[in-house]
Amino acid sequence: MGLLVEKGAKKAVQKRSQITRDKIMQAMDELLQVESFEVINIAKLSTTAGVSAASIYQRFENKDALISILIALYIEKVRVWNEVAQNQPDVQSAENLREVLLRIALAAWRQFEALSYVMRPAYLYSRLRPELLGGHWQAQEKRALHGFEAMLNQWAGELAGRNIAQVAAMVSYFYNMMFLGKLMHNDAQSSWNLGLGAEEFAENLADFVMGYLEQGRR
Amino acid sequence: MGLLVEKGAKKAVQKRSQITRDKIMQAMDELLQVESFEVINIAKLSTTAGVSAASIYQRFENKDALISILIALYIEKVRVWNEVAQNQPDVQSAENLREVLLRIALAAWRQFEALSYVMRPAYLYSRLRPELLGGHWQAQEKRALHGFEAMLNQWAGELAGRNIAQVAAMVSYFYNMMFLGKLMHNDAQSSWNLGLGAEEFAENLADFVMGYLEQGRR
Repeated sequence: MGLLVEKGAKKAVQKRSQITRDKIMQAMDELLQVESFEVINIAKLSTTAGVSAASIYQRFENKDALISILIALYIEKVRVWNEVAQNQPDVQSAENLREVLLRIALAAWRQFEALSYVMRPAYLYSRLRPELLGGHWQAQEKRALHGFEAMLNQWAGELAGRNIAQVAAMVSYFYNMMFLGKLMHNDAQSSWNLGLGAEEFAENLADFVMGYLEQGRR
Repeated sequence: MGLLVEKGAKKAVQKRSQITRDKIMQAMDELLQVESFEVINIAKLSTTAGVSAASIYQRFENKDALISILIALYIEKVRVWNEVAQNQPDVQSAENLREVLLRIALAAWRQFEALSYVMRPAYLYSRLRPELLGGHWQAQEKRALHGFEAMLNQWAGELAGRNIAQVAAMVSYFYNMMFLGKLMHNDAQSSWNLGLGAEEFAENLADFVMGYLEQGRR
């Protein structure tokens, strides 16, 4: 009986801790939607979350609390995004490889549009401080890569005996970097802001990849 | 006569100021080659340059002195790099468009290998603080874009009536982002570290672009 009470108390503490963590993440999410990460500080976060600064430092390592929260928020946002079925490109019903590529690009575009406010600073700080990333991001990169490999395996007939793992690595890299450019160069001043709409961007990417796959066939 | 003396004195001051600035830039260059930008501070820079911290703050805006020096160094390094004739790809003697594309990629590879220690942090901080970039970087992006446009105009026969300005924008974006990926994901942990050598990377990029150009022809 004593043990059960103790367990109950422990659970209550864990639950409160989770609620505090959720409040902190929620506050970071709200702040990022209205201002840049560079001007967010612990004081603002604490006020917005209704949680003491000490509570924030307690949960996220002191020195890099803000960056750690940013990266945790990014991982969480992408996880939740990927759980929604409509957010995934419907690649099974596509009639040809080009259509698959278009759907992948359009789904990525929607994700980048919806989450760029957190993806952009999270990417930059993860490159500045890769040691704060942990294995999560790496696992996500690997999933993206394996997704391309599985997809290309389904269309192996169009690849005329090429090494699918190598082609998948290159095509996956291509998609990520072409979208990274869009994420990084979203200011009107940059020449790398192409100003294309979703459809046109997707068609251009499909042209690159279909052309790339055909080159290898010669 | 008084005026001439004053002019002479002013020139001497300007010269001393330029020497101090050179010392600061040189010190940043040296430090970046042995440690990451995140751990470089004004004290280290001041000691390495043999220049007072006050002199550094006087020349570069107080709050963002380090980032301003980093970006100024990057612009200077690229300017000097581009002035060396052997660093430019020999596109005139190339026999076909594919050969031109290979030479452009190999020249870019050499530049990224030589200057990544300054290009990498400069890129990340310029994306975090685009207002510190000034017009220099933008001018450089525009030059890269116009270079591609001029080159593609020479091979207009292979482009079958496509809008060369649009194709150049896309191909220029493609090259920049594919190399940006290499610059950002140089750690062994990242799935986007392709581990390709210069030749193989260049051949893959040429496959993408030649294929892209051929797609538009259909």
